[in-house]
Amino acid sequence: MAEKKGIKIATIGGGSSYTPELMEGFIKRYDELPIREIWLVDIEAGREKLEIVGKMAQRMWDASPYDVKVHLTLNREEALKDADFVTTQFRVGLLEARIKDERIPAYYGMVGQETNGAGGMFKAFRTIPVILEIVEDMKRLCPNAWLVNFANPSGMVTEAVVRYGKWDKVIGLCNVPVMAMMTEPKLLEVEKEDLIYKFAGLNHFHWHKVADKDGNDITLKLIDKLYEGDAGLPKNIWDLPFYKEQLVQMQMVPCGYHRYYYREEEMLQHAMEEYKTIGTRAQQVKQTETELFELYKDPNLSHKPEQLEQRGGAYYSDAACETIASIYANKETQIVVSTKNNGAVPDLPADCVVEVTAYVGAQGARNVAFGSLPTAERGWLQVMKNMELLTIEAAITGDYGTALQAFTLNPLVRSGDTAIRILKELLIAHKEYLPQFAETIAKLEREGIEVQDEIARELCKEKITV
Amino acid sequence: MAEKKGIKIATIGGGSSYTPELMEGFIKRYDELPIREIWLVDIEAGREKLEIVGKMAQRMWDASPYDVKVHLTLNREEALKDADFVTTQFRVGLLEARIKDERIPAYYGMVGQETNGAGGMFKAFRTIPVILEIVEDMKRLCPNAWLVNFANPSGMVTEAVVRYGKWDKVIGLCNVPVMAMMTEPKLLEVEKEDLIYKFAGLNHFHWHKVADKDGNDITLKLIDKLYEGDAGLPKNIWDLPFYKEQLVQMQMVPCGYHRYYYREEEMLQHAMEEYKTIGTRAQQVKQTETELFELYKDPNLSHKPEQLEQRGGAYYSDAACETIASIYANKETQIVVSTKNNGAVPDLPADCVVEVTAYVGAQGARNVAFGSLPTAERGWLQVMKNMELLTIEAAITGDYGTALQAFTLNPLVRSGDTAIRILKELLIAHKEYLPQFAETIAKLEREGIEVQDEIARELCKEKITV
Amino acid sequence: MAEKKGIKIATIGGGSSYTPELMEGFIKRYDELPIREIWLVDIEAGREKLEIVGKMAQRMWDASPYDVKVHLTLNREEALKDADFVTTQFRVGLLEARIKDERIPAYYGMVGQETNGAGGMFKAFRTIPVILEIVEDMKRLCPNAWLVNFANPSGMVTEAVVRYGKWDKVIGLCNVPVMAMMTEPKLLEVEKEDLIYKFAGLNHFHWHKVADKDGNDITLKLIDKLYEGDAGLPKNIWDLPFYKEQLVQMQMVPCGYHRYYYREEEMLQHAMEEYKTIGTRAQQVKQTETELFELYKDPNLSHKPEQLEQRGGAYYSDAACETIASIYANKETQIVVSTKNNGAVPDLPADCVVEVTAYVGAQGARNVAFGSLPTAERGWLQVMKNMELLTIEAAITGDYGTALQAFTLNPLVRSGDTAIRILKELLIAHKEYLPQFAETIAKLEREGIEVQDEIARELCKEKITV
Amino acid sequence: MAEKKGIKIATIGGGSSYTPELMEGFIKRYDELPIREIWLVDIEAGREKLEIVGKMAQRMWDASPYDVKVHLTLNREEALKDADFVTTQFRVGLLEARIKDERIPAYYGMVGQETNGAGGMFKAFRTIPVILEIVEDMKRLCPNAWLVNFANPSGMVTEAVVRYGKWDKVIGLCNVPVMAMMTEPKLLEVEKEDLIYKFAGLNHFHWHKVADKDGNDITLKLIDKLYEGDAGLPKNIWDLPFYKEQLVQMQMVPCGYHRYYYREEEMLQHAMEEYKTIGTRAQQVKQTETELFELYKDPNLSHKPEQLEQRGGAYYSDAACETIASIYANKETQIVVSTKNNGAVPDLPADCVVEVTAYVGAQGARNVAFGSLPTAERGWLQVMKNMELLTIEAAITGDYGTALQAFTLNPLVRSGDTAIRILKELLIAHKEYLPQFAETIAKLEREGIEVQDEIARELCKEKITV
Repeated sequence: MAEKKGIKIATIGGGSSYTPELMEGFIKRYDELPIREIWLVDIEAGREKLEIVGKMAQRMWDASPYDVKVHLTLNREEALKDADFVTTQFRVGLLEARIKDERIPAYYGMVGQETNGAGGMFKAFRTIPVILEIVEDMKRLCPNAWLVNFANPSGMVTEAVVRYGKWDKVIGLCNVPVMAMMTEPKLLEVEKEDLIYKFAGLNHFHWHKVADKDGNDITLKLIDKLYEGDAGLPKNIWDLPFYKEQLVQMQMVPCGYHRYYYREEEMLQHAMEEYKTIGTRAQQVKQTETELFELYKDPNLSHKPEQLEQRGGAYYSDAACETIASIYANKETQIVVSTKNNGAVPDLPADCVVEVTAYVGAQGARNVAFGSLPTAERGWLQVMKNMELLTIEAAITGDYGTALQAFTLNPLVRSGDTAIRILKELLIAHKEYLPQFAETIAKLEREGIEVQDEIARELCKEKITV
Repeated sequence: MAEKKGIKIATIGGGSSYTPELMEGFIKRYDELPIREIWLVDIEAGREKLEIVGKMAQRMWDASPYDVKVHLTLNREEALKDADFVTTQFRVGLLEARIKDERIPAYYGMVGQETNGAGGMFKAFRTIPVILEIVEDMKRLCPNAWLVNFANPSGMVTEAVVRYGKWDKVIGLCNVPVMAMMTEPKLLEVEKEDLIYKFAGLNHFHWHKVADKDGNDITLKLIDKLYEGDAGLPKNIWDLPFYKEQLVQMQMVPCGYHRYYYREEEMLQHAMEEYKTIGTRAQQVKQTETELFELYKDPNLSHKPEQLEQRGGAYYSDAACETIASIYANKETQIVVSTKNNGAVPDLPADCVVEVTAYVGAQGARNVAFGSLPTAERGWLQVMKNMELLTIEAAITGDYGTALQAFTLNPLVRSGDTAIRILKELLIAHKEYLPQFAETIAKLEREGIEVQDEIARELCKEKITV
Repeated sequence: MAEKKGIKIATIGGGSSYTPELMEGFIKRYDELPIREIWLVDIEAGREKLEIVGKMAQRMWDASPYDVKVHLTLNREEALKDADFVTTQFRVGLLEARIKDERIPAYYGMVGQETNGAGGMFKAFRTIPVILEIVEDMKRLCPNAWLVNFANPSGMVTEAVVRYGKWDKVIGLCNVPVMAMMTEPKLLEVEKEDLIYKFAGLNHFHWHKVADKDGNDITLKLIDKLYEGDAGLPKNIWDLPFYKEQLVQMQMVPCGYHRYYYREEEMLQHAMEEYKTIGTRAQQVKQTETELFELYKDPNLSHKPEQLEQRGGAYYSDAACETIASIYANKETQIVVSTKNNGAVPDLPADCVVEVTAYVGAQGARNVAFGSLPTAERGWLQVMKNMELLTIEAAITGDYGTALQAFTLNPLVRSGDTAIRILKELLIAHKEYLPQFAETIAKLEREGIEVQDEIARELCKEKITV
Repeated sequence: MAEKKGIKIATIGGGSSYTPELMEGFIKRYDELPIREIWLVDIEAGREKLEIVGKMAQRMWDASPYDVKVHLTLNREEALKDADFVTTQFRVGLLEARIKDERIPAYYGMVGQETNGAGGMFKAFRTIPVILEIVEDMKRLCPNAWLVNFANPSGMVTEAVVRYGKWDKVIGLCNVPVMAMMTEPKLLEVEKEDLIYKFAGLNHFHWHKVADKDGNDITLKLIDKLYEGDAGLPKNIWDLPFYKEQLVQMQMVPCGYHRYYYREEEMLQHAMEEYKTIGTRAQQVKQTETELFELYKDPNLSHKPEQLEQRGGAYYSDAACETIASIYANKETQIVVSTKNNGAVPDLPADCVVEVTAYVGAQGARNVAFGSLPTAERGWLQVMKNMELLTIEAAITGDYGTALQAFTLNPLVRSGDTAIRILKELLIAHKEYLPQFAETIAKLEREGIEVQDEIARELCKEKITV
């Protein structure tokens, strides 16, 4: 590898507000990960952000003891050329697209969410064609590089890279397990090092078990702790509690996103309230982002600002840095990653992508074999993985029937005419980013389908420029 | 087998309004199925119905050229003793229980249905303990008999018999495929004999493909036919059309019950309208039943009345008679049955129960291996089968957490507090038939949970006597 | 299909001594299978045989009431053009090649057999490239035809057609199950119609179970019958008895070829005796063939001579005719065929080829799902199927390492230097028919590898002309 | 666990010559594995050895800085009571039994080997009933203990513990991978730490791949190195080279025992030469053992003598100590272990035992998911695992037919009358240790079956006393 000349990192979507966290992670690990140069690449529409965050990134390195050059470019090929690691954190259509993903379903009383339900599927439709282009570029320009993806929906994106891109040197990341492993030790009043974790499932849809350092499974004890305190509500990261009897039955702890599936009613209610009042999550995030970029403009700022943690997705970039360092230095760190199953989750095919605890080293992820899951979780996993596979297939073929089948199979989409309407409006709304669906979209336009949510409709009219 | 002395049939739930159809089917097939005696068995609450329908049954035989004695009894053991075939068509809690299954979810805006959603799960909770008792009786009293089940939910009941009853000589029946194979040839303007059918899936959740007599798959042609006619609506058995693009993508024809999953929104709307106006399906059926039993009382009636066909479930009993005759005479008739998979549906474990085309003969069902299903259908099958397995487990253990997991996994139950409320009310409402849940029910009673739907609540107060 | 104009049959390897049996089968079934024309195609080396047997075939039809024309050709394309059914019964390299397959291993004390051990693998190496050429021709010339293969090794040939030829309209045939179903009823003193058979496994490597007409499994009774009589030896088709305890444990009846695996020692001894005295099986068959062709020359002979039955492989052609008639007339006849698994044998992948009981009709084979096999048989099946897959891969790639792996995995090849020697001599001996291995063979020639068995060596020198 | 009071180790078969190596391993790791007491337990026949080696063991501890008491006992229950770790290294019937396992097959020209072929199966027949007794004792006496097994055949013993003993806290060990990971870095001229290993398969039947510290697979490079040097022979641990083309095809390195399967002919020849001259391996080992025990008697010896390494099985005990320390201190050390699959080898059922690279910690083995193996290796694995399962079943039921099926499936047993003879003689020879086969053995005795190999026959007459 790049031992002598130092490491080259290329970051696609380099203008992201997360970039400073990524820089901080690299600076912290410089001793084991001797970076020579970082290339932040973005598209024309992201030029301004790229410049702001790029300068900020260079300031961070300049304030460090290390001599690392941060290059800014709109030319992806230049950035990828001879890269050792490629990280992907782009969002096709920016936050504006996510706002549409959230508001158009919500207008019709359905869940709009970044990676779940109808919204998550459209994020996949937009992102997968782009990641496959990047993979093709990598085959030409940096065939030995590792791709570390945290573009969402991270599991489906990683699956597309492996299955259709035929690129195995990829690891998909998620900050959700990181958060669990940070908060739960406190609840149990032990150190993180004193717990043994085992995760299995899919990205944003995994469960975990935990044991103490003597190897005794203490998942039920953890579940008890989650429900201690006033009013029977858990005092922990979950805003909305799971039903305790359900967790006791499964003897595992679900991830936060399982609330959409285990308490669909309340999650939807909450989303509808936000939709009608303060705006959906992306709208809130957009505000935070604007503030962040204002901060980043400050020529005296040379460290990651605290506000970034409120952005959501905290520790995502740190997980990426740790993954890269583990691969580079063959550290065999335990990380929860999206990766080819290889049997670790025997209830799913050995060649699909899952999210599991793995020891990450120079060969990538060495997945810990979890063993078969209990009946309920097996059912969930199988329906979700097949929904993912259909979504990816639709993202590639642009076939309307396949998209409809994926929609129908998705547990968060209530099938019927309203779902069809949402599907059609989202196709129209994201027209610019869905060339694979061009024929269908043209037909819908002839039929006069229009986005009904006012904010989303206005966004469709704008020429997106950040 | 019973060659010399003639066949003994025992029918559990013999007081059912279907019994005359069963008699008609036996009379029609007497030449290949020489019955000696039929035992109709029912419970005390069904005594009156049993007597009415039993006399009617005897009159039907008396009007035939055959000398067959119809015995009526409340003593199940007496009926099972040395039986050659046992048919099960009982409904625990009678139509009153089904009314509760339908109305309690509907009160809260959720699907209440005989075999689907929350209602179907409670039907399983009530039925499975009873079928397992019957199987234990059979092991003692008629260990060589075949069990032909059409008590619903037929697939789950059959699975319970095989998995927990450890009884392999069982076939579960469904009239839905029969209906498809009767109506589709007309649409295609051919004879039934000119079509080759292949079904696979689960009970009330299967798909089929069809070929012409030269072996060419004509499923897409059939799909086209289903949508011919005015206003783009199919002129066929489906009241509500499937989305054509979806059927074209799967290149299979779903069963009628798939409408609950593929057009959940509209099916729910329709159910809510009925709930608020003419009453749910069971209420309508109850009216038909009352009329039927009035007819049956007529001492001059000695043939199946036409009104029976409106009862729903037509041809169910005929399928049962054909199955029995095929087993008895090793006819190898093609029948769609619920039976141990044995690999016929490779996407599900080889030891679970599926519903497939089989050649039925003296050894029971010889399933036609269907091969792997496409992605979408695989996802649906896997989630539904795991939901069934959880439901059956809850039916046996009476564990509340398992019931909750089954509820949550069921695609027709929207998870959350309302679902929990429905679960609790149904437990209370069916208290009498759910001894396995006694502890949970007692706790709910202490908490003061009460059924809110007025009609269902009144039914809970009545001492059920038919 | 060919309803109006009558059916066109193309038979590749038409000069085979089996052709009269095939004609007889067609004549017998003319009413349900109205053939218009038959094309017998062979290669230059088989021209003389083709003419003899072709004239004989035409005489058979002329002596029948039916007006069918038998065409003889060396031009395969002409024969395939618009064919409705293609049957393949060719043997690449003729009986001379089989003699080498048998004698070269035998020279070194190893099993040489037509379809088993080293010989069977080389038959696959020679046959698979040719069958794939035929499939490519069929795609162009008769894309709607069915391929009915009885070229050996029939299972591997069928697997190659499905897996690499991507041609699903194929059925592989075997006369072994036919023989079992003809002789066993006599042993049991019942009619064939009174037994229910279920076969599963691979070609020349299957097991079966049998039940009486009441559905009672009587396999153990049949096993008892197989061992009745003097000296504890079975008086049945098996020359060498299986160990009874083994059959009782498996509760199935193996096929005759299992003797090579279950009594390897004695089968080898017997083969060695023949090798040293009367010559191997192919040498014996060659004599029979010469006599047969003498008979066929008789211009007065217009029916299949009795001597053909001693040829071995009797009823093969009859099975082929029955298969074709069943497909043509959608008869749903129970036939044991090599066909895509589709789950029928759940211990093997759903997409590989197995040999199972199937109902054969216009869509081809509808496999009866057998369910999981017991431990021992599962182990055998899995090793044999993987050996087949390796053999096929080597047949296509010509990779020496893959051939060596296949040899090593084959239970009848004792690994080591002698096996390597046999592998190398067989490559040299069949040079003419193994273009895919040209590079390896050239290297072996440079190394001076020579066939040691004298008879085989002489055959290598001859220009094969029949 | 035993933190405060120190650890109690119970070693079944404590009189083994390996015990000093075990002691050395514990002494070396005392800092991380604070042992309080060690119980060496043996049977009456091993009393003398136990005393010799027990004293030696105590001397070793006395010479160390640690205060550890070595208890000697013939009372297994006393030893197991409250143990933290139980190690099993017993050999039922001692080396005398192994001599019979080797000589009886060899008399008839077949492979007799400790863990392979007929011998290995009889070792399983003798060992499995005993290990299951031990497990039952553990359930009563030390239900929280870990069982660390290195009694051979280690894989089958571990499988029996998991499958029939229903005991999951077990790890089976093998020194073969340890040896590979010690010698190969030297060949490649790197440090062990610079290589990344991945093993998968079964005990004494696994393969591995190796990568450099940058993650590049260098297995082909290693294969090249194995064949460097004079005469094309590998200068490494293998006495007999594998065929290089085979290794190149599989792109993996087999374990040493694979020579029995990949070069059966030569391995057998070599065994026959030894049999006819210097005696089989067990006879040689017995000589070494006698010498070792002479050394152990020396009251001045307080460290493991060098001669022990020639004993074979070197590093076995060290692997055991490392495993125990890793469990105790949750070290997550990479060790190759026999353990429940959990999907790590997707070609075998998730619930069977495999041998794979695992990270060993307080919860036992966290298997690295290897992914599907190539065709040839998949075939081998599946036949061997099913052979193991049959052998274990026969070991428990004592069913002769099952034993015969296992023999027949075993690739190293050539089926036929000679195999039957060997099976029968081994049953007779091991009568004392095979109560489960008592009925069959009595029958064989009545038939007058006698062991033909003179040395083995003499051993049968002796009252074994060590």
